[in-house]
Amino acid sequence: MIRCDCAVCTSSDPRDKRTRSSIYIETPECAFVVDTGTDFRTQALRENIWRLDAVIFTHSHTDHIMGFDDLRRFGSVRGYMPVYASRDTMNDLRRVFKFAFEAETQFPGYLKPEPHIVDGPFQLGATTITPLPVPHGRSPVNGYLFERGGKKLLAYLSDCSEVPEHIGAQITGVKVLVIDALRPNPHPTHLSVAQALEVAERVQAERAFFTHVAHELPHSAEADLPPHARIAYDGLKLEL
Amino acid sequence: MIRCDCAVCTSSDPRDKRTRSSIYIETPECAFVVDTGTDFRTQALRENIWRLDAVIFTHSHTDHIMGFDDLRRFGSVRGYMPVYASRDTMNDLRRVFKFAFEAETQFPGYLKPEPHIVDGPFQLGATTITPLPVPHGRSPVNGYLFERGGKKLLAYLSDCSEVPEHIGAQITGVKVLVIDALRPNPHPTHLSVAQALEVAERVQAERAFFTHVAHELPHSAEADLPPHARIAYDGLKLEL
Repeated sequence: MIRCDCAVCTSSDPRDKRTRSSIYIETPECAFVVDTGTDFRTQALRENIWRLDAVIFTHSHTDHIMGFDDLRRFGSVRGYMPVYASRDTMNDLRRVFKFAFEAETQFPGYLKPEPHIVDGPFQLGATTITPLPVPHGRSPVNGYLFERGGKKLLAYLSDCSEVPEHIGAQITGVKVLVIDALRPNPHPTHLSVAQALEVAERVQAERAFFTHVAHELPHSAEADLPPHARIAYDGLKLEL
Repeated sequence: MIRCDCAVCTSSDPRDKRTRSSIYIETPECAFVVDTGTDFRTQALRENIWRLDAVIFTHSHTDHIMGFDDLRRFGSVRGYMPVYASRDTMNDLRRVFKFAFEAETQFPGYLKPEPHIVDGPFQLGATTITPLPVPHGRSPVNGYLFERGGKKLLAYLSDCSEVPEHIGAQITGVKVLVIDALRPNPHPTHLSVAQALEVAERVQAERAFFTHVAHELPHSAEADLPPHARIAYDGLKLEL
């Protein structure tokens, strides 16, 4: 974190160097990313991403959208970029990236978003993606459940202060749960480590990975977690 | 650049790894930054910046503003962050970062911008800063001239397709000119290398540094430039 010399911010463990939360999913049919935070270009270069067929947004906070324009390098492949977001998030994207949504002249190489409002499950290739609306303090945020062949492979809940019972029920038995665990202490808009562990147990996730982790939680704190719960880090890859 | 394996994008010269254009200026009285592009956090962490008293904007294109919210780590020191920009750029900042400009509840640690419309020269400590409106294709962009003790120390023209005669006259004799030089070939909204060299000569800059450089221009191309013209790189430091 800027202006901080705490043990985590000055740690030599590369897993303590964290950019903004996001996931990239490759399937046999297509590839997509959830959120394009401010670090999107850095992340795409670091992971040498060459394919991206769609983008899905959880919500419109700056740490999740400000890299949006860097999608132009993928959108230009086919001339447009499918963008999936709730109506409120899409409205914010339209306001912030007005030049892209309202462009009259289409310069080659510029981003041309193709908006898809998410108001229920949708398909990308053979993947069924179900929005999971959860509270992030007073803001609503979409988590997402990714299913293939009827199997609950992944639930992504990057920003939430609570996982209501009916959402927990939807993801029960999920293979991998990626879940907000900001820090050991409670926070008004994010889950704490203990709260994230409670959700992972309640939904009987095979494995849980903590994301949106702040500098109060060193990567080394993983040693104190049960074996099915791990702290995610930049560049972590999972095969499901 | 994303999705590119050209010689510059895969170069092992660290000076070929480029983040978005920006400068940070430290004076005995205060410190300020010109633009907070998408890489602002990355740059502030890399350079271990702990002090920032104000921010000045050239224009509102994404590569110059999208890191704005990361100013919160500096603004929180005194509770607000002075923001200098033309009226049009300020309007765009207000639209894009609505939550910061219009916040009703001030959470501690959130960014509270203090807007200053730039419509003529202004002072930050003992530095006189004069806006230099230049065309960036069809958009107007502010370059800036920085003077101390009546000396023209630095002119910053990060994005321009032309430097009109009257602007050239204002910066004639400047010690350091940092100027847009996108690539060898002409471009509708940026200067080429030859055009940037012409400006540097016309304004009799003691030294010129090229910025906003694209992957068509390897750092090694510096060898072909006259000795007073250099290609800037991430982390370059100058004492004036």
